Amino acid sequence: MTTLVIGANGQIGKQFCEQAHEQGLAIKAMVRRQEQAGWFKERGIDVVIGDLEGEMEHAFEGCDEVVFTAGSGPHTGPDKTLLIDLYGAIRTADIAKAKGLARYIMVSAIRAEQPLEAPEKMRPYMAAKFAADRHLESAGIPYVILKPGPLTNEAPTHGFVDSMEDSSSQSITRADVAYALVHVAKTPDLKNRSVTLLNGDRPIDTLLR
Amino acid sequence: MTTLVIGANGQIGKQFCEQAHEQGLAIKAMVRRQEQAGWFKERGIDVVIGDLEGEMEHAFEGCDEVVFTAGSGPHTGPDKTLLIDLYGAIRTADIAKAKGLARYIMVSAIRAEQPLEAPEKMRPYMAAKFAADRHLESAGIPYVILKPGPLTNEAPTHGFVDSMEDSSSQSITRADVAYALVHVAKTPDLKNRSVTLLNGDRPIDTLLR
Repeated sequence: MTTLVIGANGQIGKQFCEQAHEQGLAIKAMVRRQEQAGWFKERGIDVVIGDLEGEMEHAFEGCDEVVFTAGSGPHTGPDKTLLIDLYGAIRTADIAKAKGLARYIMVSAIRAEQPLEAPEKMRPYMAAKFAADRHLESAGIPYVILKPGPLTNEAPTHGFVDSMEDSSSQSITRADVAYALVHVAKTPDLKNRSVTLLNGDRPIDTLLR
Repeated sequence: MTTLVIGANGQIGKQFCEQAHEQGLAIKAMVRRQEQAGWFKERGIDVVIGDLEGEMEHAFEGCDEVVFTAGSGPHTGPDKTLLIDLYGAIRTADIAKAKGLARYIMVSAIRAEQPLEAPEKMRPYMAAKFAADRHLESAGIPYVILKPGPLTNEAPTHGFVDSMEDSSSQSITRADVAYALVHVAKTPDLKNRSVTLLNGDRPIDTLLR
């Protein structure tokens, strides 16, 4: 069971790759540029060059599932949100479906199902995540959608809740999102589930089993 | 049979409303602001205030189908493309489906099915149109998708082709897109069809029957 990691060079992507590799999971990190590959190779992680806005079908060869944790990020505008977070997500789900992959694991965002409820500045991004999730849910490939709350760079806690009401922190560390992704990757039976993720006091397997 | 026109105040929207009303079709024009309503009222066209980024469900009452010709336009950025062309389209299709409307008629764009083939500047817009069309195709409501080529403000020709190869003009007048929409509105049996529109030498009913 090999997991293709799309957005491997991102903050969550790198932490997922590191944790998954340490635990012996087979992963393949897709990065856009050759100079991004070294970080993965140094750690013994399989890496492939692929472009979410260009050629990438070859990256799916030999893979059984996808983790999508790509994001255009805060340093680009909504034009890239459309091309990466929306269209990149749709296209990868279509490729995964066409190639018969077993599962697609999406990193979405808390409350992406209600873009107009978000703060005004966040609404365009949430609309992209909403549409990407909706597409995945109807694409015909088994999926898991993780919807983390506001992300922080604090140390991992390995504690979670799936609702704002149950959470004292109202945020989640990127390390814990990566940890949750590893749990999903280790649980191949987990399918067609969508779950909110915030830091809290419960083990991940009580939210996702 | 009443058609709700979403984006009625746009360039194609106004021409569609005018042509449809002249031909005796029942339409209801949805506009965002009260001061936009006068143009329609003067012509005897039913009008309703509704906001694609806010309250609009009431506008669907008493309507049997939707024409979606809203676009955030060239004076706003891709943030509005995400909220209007993408999320507005998805949300209206969901409302139309939930309310049991008979048909959803979408004004899309030529080659929206291949966003990465578009000139770089157009790709984010095409990604939004692509995703909106894909959603509509799987939303469970009968649809017609018109995909006009580059739009001009020339006089109508009432002549069409559905392929770049057959067209000498490589463009289409907004008046002719409106004319094609009227044809669709007058042909309720037309369902689950997607067609490219360029000016050419054929009558509209040879492309859409």
